[in-house]
Amino acid sequence: MTKHTIEFLPDNITVTVDKGENLLSAAAEAGVYIHAYCGGDGVCGKCKVVVDEGEVHSSKSNLKQEDWDKGFRLACLSTVESDLKVTIPEMTTKSGKALKRKPKTTRTISAKSLDTLIGTWEVDPPVSKIYLELDPPTMEDNISDMQRVMRGIKLVMPGDSREPSYDHPELIKHLPRVLRESDWKITLLLLRGKNKGETFRIIDVEAGNTTKRLYGLAVDIGTTTCSGVLVDLNTGKIIAEASGYNGQISFGEDVISRIIYAARPGGLKALQDKVIETINTIIDDICRKMIISPSDISYIMAAGNTVMSHLLLGLDPKYIRESPYVPSVSQFPLTKAAGLGIHAHPSMRLFLYPCIASYVGGDIVAGVHACQMAKSEEVSLFIDIGTNG
Amino acid sequence: MTKHTIEFLPDNITVTVDKGENLLSAAAEAGVYIHAYCGGDGVCGKCKVVVDEGEVHSSKSNLKQEDWDKGFRLACLSTVESDLKVTIPEMTTKSGKALKRKPKTTRTISAKSLDTLIGTWEVDPPVSKIYLELDPPTMEDNISDMQRVMRGIKLVMPGDSREPSYDHPELIKHLPRVLRESDWKITLLLLRGKNKGETFRIIDVEAGNTTKRLYGLAVDIGTTTCSGVLVDLNTGKIIAEASGYNGQISFGEDVISRIIYAARPGGLKALQDKVIETINTIIDDICRKMIISPSDISYIMAAGNTVMSHLLLGLDPKYIRESPYVPSVSQFPLTKAAGLGIHAHPSMRLFLYPCIASYVGGDIVAGVHACQMAKSEEVSLFIDIGTNG
Repeated sequence: MTKHTIEFLPDNITVTVDKGENLLSAAAEAGVYIHAYCGGDGVCGKCKVVVDEGEVHSSKSNLKQEDWDKGFRLACLSTVESDLKVTIPEMTTKSGKALKRKPKTTRTISAKSLDTLIGTWEVDPPVSKIYLELDPPTMEDNISDMQRVMRGIKLVMPGDSREPSYDHPELIKHLPRVLRESDWKITLLLLRGKNKGETFRIIDVEAGNTTKRLYGLAVDIGTTTCSGVLVDLNTGKIIAEASGYNGQISFGEDVISRIIYAARPGGLKALQDKVIETINTIIDDICRKMIISPSDISYIMAAGNTVMSHLLLGLDPKYIRESPYVPSVSQFPLTKAAGLGIHAHPSMRLFLYPCIASYVGGDIVAGVHACQMAKSEEVSLFIDIGTNG
Repeated sequence: MTKHTIEFLPDNITVTVDKGENLLSAAAEAGVYIHAYCGGDGVCGKCKVVVDEGEVHSSKSNLKQEDWDKGFRLACLSTVESDLKVTIPEMTTKSGKALKRKPKTTRTISAKSLDTLIGTWEVDPPVSKIYLELDPPTMEDNISDMQRVMRGIKLVMPGDSREPSYDHPELIKHLPRVLRESDWKITLLLLRGKNKGETFRIIDVEAGNTTKRLYGLAVDIGTTTCSGVLVDLNTGKIIAEASGYNGQISFGEDVISRIIYAARPGGLKALQDKVIETINTIIDDICRKMIISPSDISYIMAAGNTVMSHLLLGLDPKYIRESPYVPSVSQFPLTKAAGLGIHAHPSMRLFLYPCIASYVGGDIVAGVHACQMAKSEEVSLFIDIGTNG
């Protein structure tokens, strides 16, 4: 396919795209912010650009004749037909200027000092570690490696007579090597069963005693801003924070425009990739600060509104916008984060707060949960003010 | 990397390989059978070939001086250094000749007539289907698609108050589309929980009523021969059979030589690929006969000795051969067959019969299970005669 090069001014950012590519998508690909409130639907008329050199196919739509004559075009309704020089006028990038700066935390109270406001929490994470020193096999005791591990677990946790399940095939592929390299001294990472009375699941095995290293990450997936805090799951203490703008913002500013963008060819995947990229930047920031690896994080809890939650999992959000406004899922199952492209250990699970309905999301549920208002005798109201950006 | 072409005579089979490739591996890649009893360890001296043209690097090992002078070389100890013409003498391919023919079934009693010998079985497969006609969502009833399905299940199966789990993310990605395309009339494929009292799992959703189509495949993974039977899980009747030689045979004839071959670079993967290829041929044969698709098969039960079971799952079998003879796993967890490369629906599970020890495998366990000797009051002995090939 023929390729064309576009130079975006005034920032002199260059990108090469296929002939026929949509100009708004090309800008997003280049990381050039264009204000497109309606998500590229040709309705809001905000994504005005000037084509200085080269040729585009473009519809006029609701662009004023005066603007059209001056050389303005709507990026979302233009396709690339040759090499281009395109100027992004200040009005088109205005709201975006601020977005080039690192966001301040959107919280007026830092997560670390939240305890004093909402009371303390019992530390009872869904993942835990146990350290085992196993007897090496002999001719008299040559049960399989996995049976040896199960026997070791029973000695330490004699309560449950049923064997735990384990991640497959990842775990059994590594187990024999880890056992022998660690001289049969290992740490297991365990995931609690979903329902009460269900057996737990072994999701990782590490050489030696690593029980002191157990981290969880909480992520707030906002339509505008995403932020994350790293929690030491042995103590419950917050030990690092980071945040960044949700990268989806260049595809539309509110949830409706994101839903519209998701309906384009490749749109859903592009939106999912952008929020994953944002979360990865947060993870990388935190890991750099703490000098740990992303694979040291053993659990992620995330919350977002219903559209953000669907986009994170790559679920088509279109029925959320159409009457009778039905989400695909409201109680999200545990997801392997690495499977989504998140920088994480392959067996690390991501918990996404459940939604109540299409427009009452997991962000609200998480807020209600976090402030523990359910414990109050009195009728209480939870208000999520949001960015209103 | 430099490539060289090898022509194998007398069958005029040509293959192109990297310079330095092992000649036995090159022959296996070309599908040319060379008798290599020891699995390419340079010990058995069976893989004698004559290099007619071109150059190999070769060790003499235990090859007689007389043979060496005649131009014989051991394929397993030779590397390709130029384009080659290589003759496989009749003695080297002798045992292999028979292998080019389709194997007869190794059973003297066909699976279909086995009932009369061992008595009947209760039909109680681990997978089942239920058909649901759901109410479409309205403004008054706009719960999420997945909640609607869960509510539908509860109406049909009121016993269990807990929600079933489901395959993720496959199921929720397809569900909204299938629901709407089928006018909210769907069939769910359910997998029974592993432990008693565990909830079942939804592993697939199909449009319309497909409850009459429910097939299971049983596969015997022999070191020499593999065979499969297709069972109608609604009736318990065997409806098709197929078999073929285990493709691993060109890497060694018995389990010890396979273990040795698995220790070579890429050896484990090559052995796994070969048995998967064999199973796929059986599946394709059966599906052609029955005019069904491999994705119509809802469950696979397989049995093999401990080495065959490890190789199928891609587990290194080396500790099975070294004192104190320890397998990595003896109770294999359910595996997604498509993840191994088997022609199957992505959510289809493969059950592999558990092993007792390194040299008492799942084939024995399956035999003991199938003949129901545990029901007998008397002490009984089960003998698996095997191919002894």
